Amino acid sequence: MRNINEHTITPAFLERLARCQSSRLKEIMSSLVEHLHDFAREVRLTEAEWLAGIEFLTATGQKCSDTRQEFILLSDTLGLSMLTVALNQGKPAGATEATVFGPFHVLDAPPAEQGADIARGAPGEPLFVQARVRSLAGAPIAGAEVDIWQADDDGLYDVQRPELGSARRARALMHTDSAGSVRFRTIAPTAYPVPTDGPVGQMLLATGRHPWRPAHIHFMIRAAGFAPLITHIFVDGDKYLDSDVVFGVRSSLIGNFVRHAAGTAPDGTRMTQPFQVLQQDFVLAPLAASLLPARAA
Amino acid sequence: MRNINEHTITPAFLERLARCQSSRLKEIMSSLVEHLHDFAREVRLTEAEWLAGIEFLTATGQKCSDTRQEFILLSDTLGLSMLTVALNQGKPAGATEATVFGPFHVLDAPPAEQGADIARGAPGEPLFVQARVRSLAGAPIAGAEVDIWQADDDGLYDVQRPELGSARRARALMHTDSAGSVRFRTIAPTAYPVPTDGPVGQMLLATGRHPWRPAHIHFMIRAAGFAPLITHIFVDGDKYLDSDVVFGVRSSLIGNFVRHAAGTAPDGTRMTQPFQVLQQDFVLAPLAASLLPARAA
Repeated sequence: MRNINEHTITPAFLERLARCQSSRLKEIMSSLVEHLHDFAREVRLTEAEWLAGIEFLTATGQKCSDTRQEFILLSDTLGLSMLTVALNQGKPAGATEATVFGPFHVLDAPPAEQGADIARGAPGEPLFVQARVRSLAGAPIAGAEVDIWQADDDGLYDVQRPELGSARRARALMHTDSAGSVRFRTIAPTAYPVPTDGPVGQMLLATGRHPWRPAHIHFMIRAAGFAPLITHIFVDGDKYLDSDVVFGVRSSLIGNFVRHAAGTAPDGTRMTQPFQVLQQDFVLAPLAASLLPARAA
Repeated sequence: MRNINEHTITPAFLERLARCQSSRLKEIMSSLVEHLHDFAREVRLTEAEWLAGIEFLTATGQKCSDTRQEFILLSDTLGLSMLTVALNQGKPAGATEATVFGPFHVLDAPPAEQGADIARGAPGEPLFVQARVRSLAGAPIAGAEVDIWQADDDGLYDVQRPELGSARRARALMHTDSAGSVRFRTIAPTAYPVPTDGPVGQMLLATGRHPWRPAHIHFMIRAAGFAPLITHIFVDGDKYLDSDVVFGVRSSLIGNFVRHAAGTAPDGTRMTQPFQVLQQDFVLAPLAASLLPARAA
């Protein structure tokens, strides 16, 4: 086809998918490009704006590294991540809800034993966590993998501190004991801004949005026979609970962080400073149930 | 807002634009995110597909360099580039039409004098070009900047040949003489595949599309008082004229390449091999006219 105009370009593209072997890929590419073209026509995109978009996407890709995923951050801040979670993570009643994965998970979280201090020197008020992983029927799930990561009292993840190199702190990979529990010491999470030193930060600034997330700890929990759970536990009373920059807050995920004066911690440690305690249950859905809300027939 | 679901995410995002100072940016972001969310809902995007998309965009950004613009190539192959040209480059009758910019322009094209051999050793059948730059009224435009770039007989641009380092060939920056002309020697362009060693190549393969562009030479022409012109001249008879992978072919841009047996070239050179000659007029629209088809009021 020659002499394509603003109207014929879309059917011309769709014709090119005639030999696409995967019907699912064809469906995705058709919908994606129809919406992309509709967007450009709707706003009557100028060439300067097109180029700004190209430069923005390029800079976003180039900001990505092993410890920084700027495209996930973009997806998070545009609401696409939470939308994808909502489309896929409908849970049976009683199961713990999911929320966004975020850009700061790493694959090399240090393993930790029961009772370990996973803060490993990260600054913040001490926090003692007991998390129980259970089935919908209430049965403890032993040997579940519990991946934990969080920001410190300065609002920074370890990977955001160049001075740490590849050292990891305020994150760990644990496994539940025979009672389905993990117990660890860490620090209380605080609200923090998502990184604003990249293209996503520029987008937030240009569109008049704040970059803050309410305080939370990330959990990713996996156990054989159960649907993987990617979620957070939020802190009640946080001023950003209703304006989380990544739209991730669910009422059911607000934890019961209890503050204590100096004294004896749950693990017997004599604390000379105030500390917090969190007891949190996670209920995993069976593997099959989590697939129910997937694609309509 | 808490407990966002697949329907409430879009209004929740739009609310966040309340403090966006630029009404144009607000318009663009609103339309973009509404279409992005509609796409995800329409195809019921799975989490694995979302992650594949994140990884694709990341790889696309990381493939970009000073001499490779994979996001422009993506835009080109999805038809967005030609759509943007169509939205902005409506020309008055008689003016030369525009087409896509492509990913292989560089800012450091070597300046060349009239009559130069800009191929500088790039392989291909010799081609002698005389290009005249004129106004709609037919007046020659002296001193116009003419930026020329093309692939060689192997279908490669100089920047695609690592062995050349930063050496430039089959491209040049020239200026029209007092008669509004540039004359140069180069090589005949041939059809070539866009680079398939990156994410865009994977996308083309996965969707069953060929990666070929019909033979062409790129021209970008700028002169004071006239709308910049970004275009190609295509070769008649090319087998890919109707299936250009970037949708860029316009009938009016097919040039009259004339093949000659060995003998005397237009510049007086004695040629011992066959050669081609192209005489091509470019008609620039006045600056104001090119702005007419921009955004509706």
